Amino acid sequence: MQVFPATSIEAKPAPDAAGVALRWVIAQNVGAPNFYMRVIEVQAGAATEKHSHAWEHEVYVLEGSGSVNGVQGKFALEAGDCVYVAPNELHQFANTGQVLLRFICVIPRL
Amino acid sequence: MQVFPATSIEAKPAPDAAGVALRWVIAQNVGAPNFYMRVIEVQAGAATEKHSHAWEHEVYVLEGSGSVNGVQGKFALEAGDCVYVAPNELHQFANTGQVLLRFICVIPRL
Repeated sequence: MQVFPATSIEAKPAPDAAGVALRWVIAQNVGAPNFYMRVIEVQAGAATEKHSHAWEHEVYVLEGSGSVNGVQGKFALEAGDCVYVAPNELHQFANTGQVLLRFICVIPRL
Repeated sequence: MQVFPATSIEAKPAPDAAGVALRWVIAQNVGAPNFYMRVIEVQAGAATEKHSHAWEHEVYVLEGSGSVNGVQGKFALEAGDCVYVAPNELHQFANTGQVLLRFICVIPRL
């Protein structure tokens, strides 16, 4: 068993999106065998890259306000919201508020 | 893409622990292919069953205060803490505070 604050894991800047950083909180660092939990932090006015990939996202919004944009349109996000992005679905998360947008995003081990 | 508040998913009482309820927020309801996200809610004074099983837990504490007890001893928990429970590790989560303890717990699809 390993117990630690998420903030003890370095927030690494996303290579493809300014103002976005990822903490890989439960991943290779603990030898997670099947899926990886990240905490993603999006600065006010910033957004993740609009993209798709072969794996799903399971998201839980921790704080802040934002949106997620996909082929069905744009959905508003606030703390306590869940987002399921299926494999190969186009998606982009944006911070639409004045404070940091933080959300959990779990992906399969790649 | 599916977007919904976690509270829109029913909190089902745990069959083996009084005062504990689980919301299966991203699971069979959305056809999640590889892993399931639950929000677990533990009332003040309550605890999950002390048990082990063949799959891992990836946990993020949302609110409240509590502890997780394992073979290495008991660790205090507060919002923002992460817990990795490896497969076959004994574990028990308890609410040690006065308000609801809420945490995300992700498991492989079973």
